[in-house]
Amino acid sequence: MLIGIDMMGGDYAPAQAVKGVKAFQERFPLIPLCLFGAESVLLPLLQQDQVSLEHITIVHAPDQIGMHEHPTRALKEKPQSSIAIGFGWLSQGKIAAFMSAGNTGAMLVGTHFSIKPLEGVIRPTISTIIPKIDGGTALLLDVGLNADCKPEHLNQFAIMGSVYANVMLGIENPTVGLINVGEEETKGNALTQATYPLLKENKLIHFIGNVEGRDILTGKANVMVCDGYTGNIVLKMAESLFDIATHQQIDTPYFGRFNFENYGGTPVLGVSKPVIIGHGISGEKAFMNMLCLAKDMAEKQVMQKMSIALRPQA
Amino acid sequence: MLIGIDMMGGDYAPAQAVKGVKAFQERFPLIPLCLFGAESVLLPLLQQDQVSLEHITIVHAPDQIGMHEHPTRALKEKPQSSIAIGFGWLSQGKIAAFMSAGNTGAMLVGTHFSIKPLEGVIRPTISTIIPKIDGGTALLLDVGLNADCKPEHLNQFAIMGSVYANVMLGIENPTVGLINVGEEETKGNALTQATYPLLKENKLIHFIGNVEGRDILTGKANVMVCDGYTGNIVLKMAESLFDIATHQQIDTPYFGRFNFENYGGTPVLGVSKPVIIGHGISGEKAFMNMLCLAKDMAEKQVMQKMSIALRPQA
Repeated sequence: MLIGIDMMGGDYAPAQAVKGVKAFQERFPLIPLCLFGAESVLLPLLQQDQVSLEHITIVHAPDQIGMHEHPTRALKEKPQSSIAIGFGWLSQGKIAAFMSAGNTGAMLVGTHFSIKPLEGVIRPTISTIIPKIDGGTALLLDVGLNADCKPEHLNQFAIMGSVYANVMLGIENPTVGLINVGEEETKGNALTQATYPLLKENKLIHFIGNVEGRDILTGKANVMVCDGYTGNIVLKMAESLFDIATHQQIDTPYFGRFNFENYGGTPVLGVSKPVIIGHGISGEKAFMNMLCLAKDMAEKQVMQKMSIALRPQA
Repeated sequence: MLIGIDMMGGDYAPAQAVKGVKAFQERFPLIPLCLFGAESVLLPLLQQDQVSLEHITIVHAPDQIGMHEHPTRALKEKPQSSIAIGFGWLSQGKIAAFMSAGNTGAMLVGTHFSIKPLEGVIRPTISTIIPKIDGGTALLLDVGLNADCKPEHLNQFAIMGSVYANVMLGIENPTVGLINVGEEETKGNALTQATYPLLKENKLIHFIGNVEGRDILTGKANVMVCDGYTGNIVLKMAESLFDIATHQQIDTPYFGRFNFENYGGTPVLGVSKPVIIGHGISGEKAFMNMLCLAKDMAEKQVMQKMSIALRPQA
C-alpha cells in the first residue's frame, strides 16, 4: 500500500509538505510513501529535515501546476507536472491513494479523467467534517464539487456520506439530514422539496428530516446533504470560526476543532480510489493529517464499501 | 406616526410584548403605539407593568393566529385576529408600521395582500444584520422569503439592500457582494454565474465581486446578496453562534452581537410600508428593539427612499 503525495502543490509547498511527511513518518514509520516533485528541490529539503528515505519513493516531476492555472489546459500542457504524473501512477495502480494541496480544479479534472466513478455513481462528491458541539463529528456534503445539483444527486450523496460516516468516523447507522430552511417536509427550495421524498424512501440510509442552519454546528444529523454551492458556503463559514475565535483570543477546544488542519483535506467520494484535496494554505499539520487520512481510507477500504452500497440493485 | 404591534404573536407573548412596550416607552415616552390584542388579557398586564396608556391605543382583537397555522387559511378564517386587524389598519393608513413575532407565514401573506410592493419591485425580500468582526455591521438578503431566485431578483435585492444600508445603517456608498463559492467572476452555480454580470453592470450599486463563506462574518461587503434558501441557512447558522458561545461560556462583545434580540426583527423590504417580522422566541429586549426599528424606519422614510431608487428608469 503505497500512498502518493504531490509535494509541490499548495502555498507552503514543498517545505511544509516535507515537514508533513516527516511528522507522518514519526507516527507510521513503516508505511511507504511516494513523493511526486522536483528531485533537485525535494532532496535537500528531505535531508535538511532528516527524513528517512528507507520507505520513500521519489518520483521526479520537474514541472508543476500553479494555483490559478486553468485545470484542463494545465493538465494537458504539463504532463511532467507532479499532479499529472501522480494521477498517472494512481490510474496504473502503482499507488493506492493520491493527494495534493495544489490546484483544486486540476485535482478534480485529474480524478475525473484518470480514475473512474464507482459503478452507479452519477456524480462524485466532496465532503467535510463538521465539529459537533457535543464532541462528535458530522459529515457535510457536497461542499463544492457540484454547485448545481438534482434531487437524485443529493440522494446518492446521502448514501456515500452514510458509508463514509460509518467506515471512517465509526458511526453505527448514521443519521442523515437534509440542509433546509424549515423543519417541515414541505419547506424548502425546489431542489430540497423534491429531494425530501427521495431521502424518505431511501432504505439504504437513516433519514431524520431537515436540518436548519442553526442545527448544522450542533449536529442534529451525522450526515448532512446539500448542493455544492450551499455546502461550500457553510464549510467556509465554519472554517472562518477558527480565525474569528483566534482573532477574539478565544482558545477553547470546540473552536480549535474548526482548524481545517486537523482534518488534512477533503476526500473525493464515489470514485474508485482515494483522492484527497488539501487546502491551498496547508502547513505541516495539514499535510501530515492528509497522509493519515489517505492511509486510513486505503486500510479501511472505504471506497470498496461505498461501491457495494451503491451497486445498482438487480 | 403611530406604530402598530401585534401583542399576541410569539411564544412569550403577550407578557414579554408588554414588557417590550414598557421598555420602549422608557426610551421614547412620546412615540404613540397601537397595540393589537385581546383587551381582557392586555389590560391587566399593562397595569401590572405600569405601562402609561397616555400615548397608547389598544385595538381589541379577540382572536389570534397560532404559530403553526396555515397562513392563508388562518388570515381568511380569523378576521378578528391581531395580525388580520393589524394589517387592516396598516392598509388603511391608520398605523405607519406593523410588527409581530407571530406566525411568519401569516405576516408575509398579510403583507402581500394588504400593502403593495413598491413600483417596479419584482419580489419583496427580507434581510438580516450580520455583525462584522471589525465592529461594523453588514446586511444579508434574502434570508428566506424567496427560496428560489432568479438573477434579476438578486439584482434588485442589491439595490434595496444598498438603500437600507445607507439610510438605516448610515453607510455611505455601501459595497455590495454576491455570496458565492469562489472569488473569480466565472465561479458559482447557474444562479450566481448569471447574476454576476447584472450586478457588475448595475450603476445603482457599488458592486465589489463575490463574497465567499469565509468572508461573511468578516464582512468583506456592506451588503451581501443571495437566494433566500442560502441566506436563511447562513442567518440561522450565524444566530447559532450566540448559543454556541453561551454553551462554551464565552462572553465576548463580538459573539454577544449575534444575539438576535439586539436586532429586534427582520423588516420586509420593497413594500410600501414598514412591516417587521420578529423571531418566534422574542422576549422583552427583542420586542423593544422591534419597536425601535419600526420607529427608525418610519422616521427615516427608508421605504420612500427605496421607492425612488427602484422607480423604473424613464
